[in-house]
Amino acid sequence: MITSRGNSAVRGVIALNKKSKERDQKGLFVIEGIRMYREVPEGMLREVYISGRFKEKHPSFRPPAGVRFEVVADDVFETMSDTKTPQGIIAVVSKFLTGDGSVSDFLTGDTSLPGAEPPLIVALENLQDPGNLGTIFRSAEAAGVTGILMDAETCDVYNPKVVRATMGAIFRVPFIVTSDLKGAVEALQRQGTAVYAAHLKGSVPYTQPSYRKGTVFLIGNEGNGLTDEMAMQANMRIRIPMKGKVESLNASVAASVLLFEAMRQRN
Amino acid sequence: MITSRGNSAVRGVIALNKKSKERDQKGLFVIEGIRMYREVPEGMLREVYISGRFKEKHPSFRPPAGVRFEVVADDVFETMSDTKTPQGIIAVVSKFLTGDGSVSDFLTGDTSLPGAEPPLIVALENLQDPGNLGTIFRSAEAAGVTGILMDAETCDVYNPKVVRATMGAIFRVPFIVTSDLKGAVEALQRQGTAVYAAHLKGSVPYTQPSYRKGTVFLIGNEGNGLTDEMAMQANMRIRIPMKGKVESLNASVAASVLLFEAMRQRN
Repeated sequence: MITSRGNSAVRGVIALNKKSKERDQKGLFVIEGIRMYREVPEGMLREVYISGRFKEKHPSFRPPAGVRFEVVADDVFETMSDTKTPQGIIAVVSKFLTGDGSVSDFLTGDTSLPGAEPPLIVALENLQDPGNLGTIFRSAEAAGVTGILMDAETCDVYNPKVVRATMGAIFRVPFIVTSDLKGAVEALQRQGTAVYAAHLKGSVPYTQPSYRKGTVFLIGNEGNGLTDEMAMQANMRIRIPMKGKVESLNASVAASVLLFEAMRQRN
Repeated sequence: MITSRGNSAVRGVIALNKKSKERDQKGLFVIEGIRMYREVPEGMLREVYISGRFKEKHPSFRPPAGVRFEVVADDVFETMSDTKTPQGIIAVVSKFLTGDGSVSDFLTGDTSLPGAEPPLIVALENLQDPGNLGTIFRSAEAAGVTGILMDAETCDVYNPKVVRATMGAIFRVPFIVTSDLKGAVEALQRQGTAVYAAHLKGSVPYTQPSYRKGTVFLIGNEGNGLTDEMAMQANMRIRIPMKGKVESLNASVAASVLLFEAMRQRN
């Protein structure tokens, strides 16, 4: 049983939770809770820590062989956790390979086959709120997206708050982080997908275009929206009509409203 | 200039931020930031506090006459703020009267007049996350709702995190907190509005019903959904179809998808 806050494993988990640099260097990230634990794909699990209280409740719990496994005293476990009320299980998990960042990974499905759906992609520029990013993953999986494209300025997808808000979708939705979002979007356009920028000054209500063909929705930063450069790269700037004096929608709500409109049209 | 953390005004703001009981007893709540400050309806402002730094940037800033106004040393101001990076202005504001909690307040508009819209209402049962509640207010205003109905178990609408997430919609969307949500929903049904429960096991896809007539969307708790009692009270249980392995959508996303579908149909 680990009983010291100074223990190197304890400090290692805290560093992975707090620092994206640490996650980058080690190629690892942290997940919490039993439901999330069950979602971890085979072979990606590296270390598992359970609290003394969890051990009492689930005395026969064991991770797969070859995975480091430790019981941690409750008070020390609390310092390792990113949540206020820890569920008693934390795991260190390998980041997954996301290819060479090429969007062609999203387009390998042969859409000429019967039943194959044309691509539906969310592209995010400088999205900053971890809760928003995680919620977009969750909605995107539910709407059946092909994948999520993010620029390097978007908040780290392995941030513990993002991971938690995805409710497991991080393990199931293909995603790419690219340092050249414009180039990636251009590549998608060359392959015949239409790019729609969610824009407060968009000239077309979002319910007007058909999203039955290959579709990319471009979503910008929470405070500032899309850069002009990205907005102009889109084939069309669409807006979600709003009543009242609201200036904008929450970014994850806007993305979800667009994705479910695409899903509605495709069904 | 207030320079002590022990100052009674400083302690008063902190107590209002932290304790819903304090907000209830005093009939006051706290808002932060210049944009929110500008949204406060006339006559509701009670106290205004600005940081030393804010004072330097805006030396001529003054609240209306009759409102308590103090400059607070930056380090003390930080302890008063509910945010990590305070914007330098905090105000104590009167809670508004929400009538006698009767839903007839939502239905006073004469919908037989040309251009008048039938009611569109969101009813929330035991919603717990402040960010979700605030985001629902923001989406609800944008979708043109008549009002928001909440049970007493739903998180306090005057919680600073809720207030912040509304982006000002708290001042513009009519709302009622009721200890008898079922009774309120029944009253709405007697007056001819149809009640749709958002339910994972709903038999009807949400895009199927017409929401052009008076509509109530019932949204339940983040983890457990609606109670059976409330779900059965609805005229119809609708579901948002989901792909992948997602178990549910974020509650504010689900509410927003339904509200914007109603808006789409009504346009």
